Amino acid sequence: MIKLSILYPNIEGKKFDKDYYINTHMPLSVRLQGAAVKSVQVDFGISGLPGTKPTYIAMCHFIYESMETFESAFMPYAETLTGDIPNYTDIETIIQFSEVKIPI
Amino acid sequence: MIKLSILYPNIEGKKFDKDYYINTHMPLSVRLQGAAVKSVQVDFGISGLPGTKPTYIAMCHFIYESMETFESAFMPYAETLTGDIPNYTDIETIIQFSEVKIPI
Repeated sequence: MIKLSILYPNIEGKKFDKDYYINTHMPLSVRLQGAAVKSVQVDFGISGLPGTKPTYIAMCHFIYESMETFESAFMPYAETLTGDIPNYTDIETIIQFSEVKIPI
Repeated sequence: MIKLSILYPNIEGKKFDKDYYINTHMPLSVRLQGAAVKSVQVDFGISGLPGTKPTYIAMCHFIYESMETFESAFMPYAETLTGDIPNYTDIETIIQFSEVKIPI
Protein backbone atom coordinates (compact mmCIF):
# COMPACT_ATOMS: atom_id res chain seq x y z
CA MET A 1 0.00 0.00 0.00
CA ILE A 2 1.12 3.54 -0.58
CA LYS A 3 0.41 6.73 1.28
CA LEU A 4 0.10 10.21 -0.14
CA SER A 5 0.97 12.73 2.57
CA ILE A 6 0.14 16.41 2.18
CA LEU A 7 1.88 18.50 4.84
CA TYR A 8 1.03 22.14 5.52
CA PRO A 9 3.97 23.96 7.17
CA ASN A 10 2.97 26.10 10.15
CA ILE A 11 4.06 29.56 8.97
CA GLU A 12 3.07 32.70 10.81
CA GLY A 13 0.95 35.05 8.74
CA LYS A 14 -0.29 32.32 6.42
CA LYS A 15 -3.96 31.33 6.37
CA PHE A 16 -5.45 27.89 6.91
CA ASP A 17 -9.22 27.60 7.21
CA LYS A 18 -9.65 24.42 9.25
CA ASP A 19 -13.42 24.47 9.02
CA TYR A 20 -13.44 24.71 5.22
CA TYR A 21 -10.75 22.05 4.97
CA ILE A 22 -12.57 19.50 7.13
CA ASN A 23 -16.13 20.23 6.05
CA THR A 24 -15.78 21.13 2.37
CA HIS A 25 -12.42 20.28 0.79
CA MET A 26 -11.84 16.86 2.33
CA PRO A 27 -15.39 15.55 1.70
CA LEU A 28 -15.07 16.74 -1.93
CA SER A 29 -11.71 15.00 -2.32
CA VAL A 30 -12.93 11.74 -0.82
CA ARG A 31 -16.15 11.77 -2.85
CA LEU A 32 -14.41 12.43 -6.17
CA GLN A 33 -11.69 9.82 -5.66
CA GLY A 34 -14.20 7.18 -4.59
CA ALA A 35 -13.30 3.67 -3.50
CA ALA A 36 -9.65 4.05 -4.53
CA VAL A 37 -9.06 5.82 -1.21
CA LYS A 38 -8.71 2.99 1.28
CA SER A 39 -8.46 5.36 4.23
CA VAL A 40 -7.85 8.99 4.98
CA GLN A 41 -6.45 10.79 7.99
CA VAL A 42 -6.32 14.47 8.83
CA ASP A 43 -4.43 15.82 11.84
CA PHE A 44 -4.16 19.37 13.13
CA GLY A 45 -0.87 20.23 14.84
CA ILE A 46 -0.92 20.83 18.60
CA SER A 47 2.78 21.22 19.38
CA GLY A 48 6.27 20.05 18.70
CA LEU A 49 8.43 19.02 21.63
CA PRO A 50 7.01 20.54 24.86
CA GLY A 51 6.97 24.33 24.63
CA THR A 52 7.47 24.50 20.86
CA LYS A 53 5.06 25.12 18.00
CA PRO A 54 4.08 22.30 15.65
CA THR A 55 6.05 22.07 12.42
CA TYR A 56 2.84 21.46 10.48
CA ILE A 57 -0.50 23.16 11.02
CA ALA A 58 -2.16 20.21 9.29
CA MET A 59 -1.23 16.86 7.82
CA CYS A 60 -3.35 14.76 5.52
CA HIS A 61 -2.67 11.17 4.53
CA PHE A 62 -4.45 9.15 1.86
CA ILE A 63 -3.91 5.39 1.57
CA TYR A 64 -4.15 3.72 -1.85
CA GLU A 65 -3.46 0.18 -2.98
CA SER A 66 -0.77 1.35 -5.42
CA MET A 67 0.59 4.37 -7.29
CA GLU A 68 -1.51 3.27 -10.27
CA THR A 69 -4.67 3.35 -8.14
CA PHE A 70 -3.77 6.82 -6.93
CA GLU A 71 -3.18 8.08 -10.43
CA SER A 72 -6.41 6.73 -11.85
CA ALA A 73 -8.42 8.08 -8.89
CA PHE A 74 -6.78 11.47 -8.49
CA MET A 75 -5.64 12.65 -11.90
CA PRO A 76 -9.12 13.09 -13.44
CA TYR A 77 -9.91 15.49 -10.58
CA ALA A 78 -6.47 17.04 -10.09
CA GLU A 79 -7.53 20.39 -11.51
CA THR A 80 -10.74 20.55 -9.47
CA LEU A 81 -9.00 19.57 -6.24
CA THR A 82 -5.90 21.73 -6.58
CA GLY A 83 -8.14 24.57 -7.74
CA ASP A 84 -9.99 24.38 -4.43
CA ILE A 85 -6.81 24.87 -2.35
CA PRO A 86 -6.83 28.71 -2.42
CA ASN A 87 -10.25 28.54 -0.75
CA TYR A 88 -8.64 27.37 2.49
CA THR A 89 -4.91 28.07 2.42
CA ASP A 90 -2.05 30.00 0.86
CA ILE A 91 0.55 27.66 2.34
CA GLU A 92 2.93 25.88 -0.04
CA THR A 93 2.50 22.20 0.72
CA ILE A 94 5.00 19.38 1.05
CA ILE A 95 3.86 16.36 -0.94
CA GLN A 96 5.27 12.92 -0.26
CA PHE A 97 4.54 9.42 -1.49
CA SER A 98 5.50 6.66 0.92
CA GLU A 99 5.38 2.90 1.16
CA VAL A 100 3.27 1.78 4.12
CA LYS A 101 5.41 -0.67 6.13
CA ILE A 102 3.36 -0.87 9.34
CA PRO A 103 0.62 -1.95 9.32
CA ILE A 104 1.32 -4.22 6.37
CA MET B 1 -7.44 11.16 19.91
CA ILE B 2 -3.95 12.45 19.50
CA LYS B 3 -1.14 11.45 17.21
CA LEU B 4 2.56 11.52 17.90
CA SER B 5 4.44 11.87 14.62
CA ILE B 6 8.16 11.22 14.38
CA LEU B 7 9.56 12.43 11.06
CA TYR B 8 13.05 11.55 9.82
CA PRO B 9 14.31 14.11 7.28
CA ASN B 10 15.89 12.59 4.19
CA ILE B 11 19.41 13.98 4.37
CA GLU B 12 22.19 12.71 2.14
CA GLY B 13 25.03 11.11 4.05
CA LYS B 14 22.91 10.31 7.11
CA LYS B 15 22.19 6.72 8.08
CA PHE B 16 18.82 5.06 8.58
CA ASP B 17 18.73 1.30 9.11
CA LYS B 18 15.24 0.40 7.89
CA ASP B 19 15.59 -3.26 8.83
CA TYR B 20 16.57 -2.48 12.44
CA TYR B 21 13.85 0.13 12.70
CA ILE B 22 11.05 -2.16 11.51
CA ASN B 23 12.21 -5.41 13.09
CA THR B 24 13.79 -4.27 16.36
CA HIS B 25 13.06 -0.69 17.40
CA MET B 26 9.36 -0.53 16.52
CA PRO B 27 8.44 -3.88 18.09
CA LEU B 28 10.31 -2.79 21.25
CA SER B 29 8.46 0.53 21.32
CA VAL B 30 5.05 -1.06 20.79
CA ARG B 31 5.70 -3.80 23.38
CA LEU B 32 6.89 -1.40 26.08
CA GLN B 33 4.06 1.09 25.60
CA GLY B 34 1.44 -1.64 25.61
CA ALA B 35 -2.29 -1.05 25.11
CA ALA B 36 -1.95 2.75 25.31
CA VAL B 37 -0.91 2.67 21.65
CA LYS B 38 -4.19 2.41 19.77
CA SER B 39 -2.47 2.13 16.42
CA VAL B 40 0.89 2.64 14.82
CA GLN B 41 1.95 3.44 11.29
CA VAL B 42 5.37 3.48 9.70
CA ASP B 43 5.99 4.75 6.18
CA PHE B 44 9.18 4.83 4.13
CA GLY B 45 9.45 7.70 1.67
CA ILE B 46 9.31 6.89 -2.05
CA SER B 47 9.29 10.36 -3.61
CA GLY B 48 8.03 13.88 -3.39
CA LEU B 49 6.31 15.35 -6.42
CA PRO B 50 7.25 13.34 -9.54
CA GLY B 51 11.00 13.45 -10.11
CA THR B 52 11.88 14.74 -6.63
CA LYS B 53 13.23 12.99 -3.56
CA PRO B 54 11.00 12.42 -0.52
CA THR B 55 11.27 15.02 2.23
CA TYR B 56 11.28 12.26 4.85
CA ILE B 57 13.06 8.93 4.64
CA ALA B 58 10.63 7.60 7.24
CA MET B 59 7.58 8.74 9.17
CA CYS B 60 6.14 7.07 12.23
CA HIS B 61 2.76 7.86 13.78
CA PHE B 62 1.43 6.61 17.12
CA ILE B 63 -2.21 7.12 18.06
CA TYR B 64 -3.17 7.54 21.73
CA GLU B 65 -6.45 8.36 23.42
CA SER B 66 -5.00 11.54 24.97
CA MET B 67 -1.79 13.33 25.88
CA GLU B 68 -2.11 11.84 29.38
CA THR B 69 -2.26 8.33 27.95
CA PHE B 70 0.83 9.05 25.87
CA GLU B 71 2.73 10.38 28.86
CA SER B 72 1.91 7.47 31.14
CA ALA B 73 2.76 4.94 28.43
CA PHE B 74 5.88 6.53 27.01
CA MET B 75 7.65 8.39 29.80
CA PRO B 76 8.62 5.30 31.87
CA TYR B 77 10.46 4.00 28.78
CA ALA B 78 11.64 7.30 27.32
CA GLU B 79 15.28 6.64 28.18
CA THR B 80 15.23 3.08 26.83
CA LEU B 81 13.52 4.09 23.59
CA THR B 82 15.49 7.25 22.86
CA GLY B 83 18.66 5.36 23.83
CA ASP B 84 17.94 2.87 21.06
CA ILE B 85 17.79 5.55 18.35
CA PRO B 86 21.56 5.66 17.61
CA ASN B 87 21.29 1.95 16.73
CA TYR B 88 19.39 2.83 13.55
CA THR B 89 19.86 6.51 12.74
CA ASP B 90 21.86 9.69 13.27
CA ILE B 91 19.11 11.88 11.82
CA GLU B 92 17.69 14.64 13.99
CA THR B 93 13.96 13.96 14.11
CA ILE B 94 10.97 16.27 13.90
CA ILE B 95 8.49 15.51 16.66
CA GLN B 96 4.89 16.66 16.44
CA PHE B 97 1.76 16.12 18.49
CA SER B 98 -1.49 16.49 16.56
CA GLU B 99 -5.20 16.22 17.14
CA VAL B 100 -6.74 13.52 14.95
CA LYS B 101 -9.67 15.12 13.11
CA ILE B 102 -10.38 12.46 10.48
CA PRO B 103 -11.25 9.75 11.24
CA ILE B 104 -12.89 10.96 14.42
